[in-house]
Amino acid sequence: MVVHRHFDEELSTLKQKLITMAGLAESMIHKAIESLTKRDESLFKEVYAEEKKVNLLEIEIDDLCLKLLALKQPMATDLRFITSAMKINSELERIGDMAVNIAECASVLIKRPPLKPYIDIPRMADLAQRLVRDSLDSFIRQDVDLARSVLTRDDEIDELKAQILRELVTFMISDTSTIPRALQIVLVSRHLERIGDHATNIAEDVIYLVQGKDIRHHIEETGERRK
Amino acid sequence: MVVHRHFDEELSTLKQKLITMAGLAESMIHKAIESLTKRDESLFKEVYAEEKKVNLLEIEIDDLCLKLLALKQPMATDLRFITSAMKINSELERIGDMAVNIAECASVLIKRPPLKPYIDIPRMADLAQRLVRDSLDSFIRQDVDLARSVLTRDDEIDELKAQILRELVTFMISDTSTIPRALQIVLVSRHLERIGDHATNIAEDVIYLVQGKDIRHHIEETGERRK
Repeated sequence: MVVHRHFDEELSTLKQKLITMAGLAESMIHKAIESLTKRDESLFKEVYAEEKKVNLLEIEIDDLCLKLLALKQPMATDLRFITSAMKINSELERIGDMAVNIAECASVLIKRPPLKPYIDIPRMADLAQRLVRDSLDSFIRQDVDLARSVLTRDDEIDELKAQILRELVTFMISDTSTIPRALQIVLVSRHLERIGDHATNIAEDVIYLVQGKDIRHHIEETGERRK
Repeated sequence: MVVHRHFDEELSTLKQKLITMAGLAESMIHKAIESLTKRDESLFKEVYAEEKKVNLLEIEIDDLCLKLLALKQPMATDLRFITSAMKINSELERIGDMAVNIAECASVLIKRPPLKPYIDIPRMADLAQRLVRDSLDSFIRQDVDLARSVLTRDDEIDELKAQILRELVTFMISDTSTIPRALQIVLVSRHLERIGDHATNIAEDVIYLVQGKDIRHHIEETGERRK
């Protein structure tokens, strides 16, 4: 009985740490995009500071998962929950990396005059942040419907990315002096796309976790699952 | 005694499956790049066929790992080996995804006249393939030196990527009709870069697996570890 309560407490610590990590990842995306749209260098430092916290959390979460696996020898459902948590932990850390990449593009871009007002990039970033939040929520609440909605909404991000590319190609063709800046903005959109991909990976893990093997095979066959 | 031998056999099956998967991932990269340089559409089909095999292997490996964790309740070293195998499994599957992305860029590119002979892209692809092979070898053999060499050599890929970008910007500026094709080649170089990143992730897992927690913290502090 005592052992069980202890295990549940550790599981709830694990969940709490993942929620903190997802919150940091969201905040990093937000600040990286603000640094670009508001041309505010001071936000870079905050992104880097949060990245350090994310990296430490990644190690803490991994260690906690290993401890839970080693000491408690969990069965079936808990085992899968813990191994999924380890995968999701990696995804969240990489979402943080993408935010750092965006901040790096921003640091190049704000040294030059703006190419045009940013409209689609902040929209894409909002979508990406919400996908990160919802994918993690779907894991915590084991909510398959929410996880499925992440997969659908990731398509919107891909559409925005294509739209941004088309617009920037027009800029580049009509004025070649815009090419280096336009390329940086293309990269920002790709980093946001990858954040959507990481959120999708989390959502797919949740669907697999809750619905089990047969569904994953089915998703595989119908092509609904990630490439 | 029988239980132990059985566990060792399962571990060796696990290793064999990961080796097969890494071999497929390498082959996919090779064929995707050949489809581009030789302008050979027939290779796309092979890339997609291998992707299906990779996706099925990913599920098999995950299931085998869960089985090993659930049924054998492994301790310490074996536990870490199995959880690392699960992470590496995801990395290999995503390397396959990147090869598919490259094949998609190639299918666009070979419909238009070639921009220039491909020199740096095949070099980058060779490097990427070797990183995939060596990172997996470093895991199978628990070879930290080999894993460290993967981290170093990934920097060469990043340099090639920067060189390719500079060259393509020159093309785009001197002749705007090259912009759409040049952008596709930039994307190919980014997909290859990501393959290098996935190999780096595997190598980092190996270093953590073999040398344990303290070293990972150390790597974290010196910034040697991935962002």
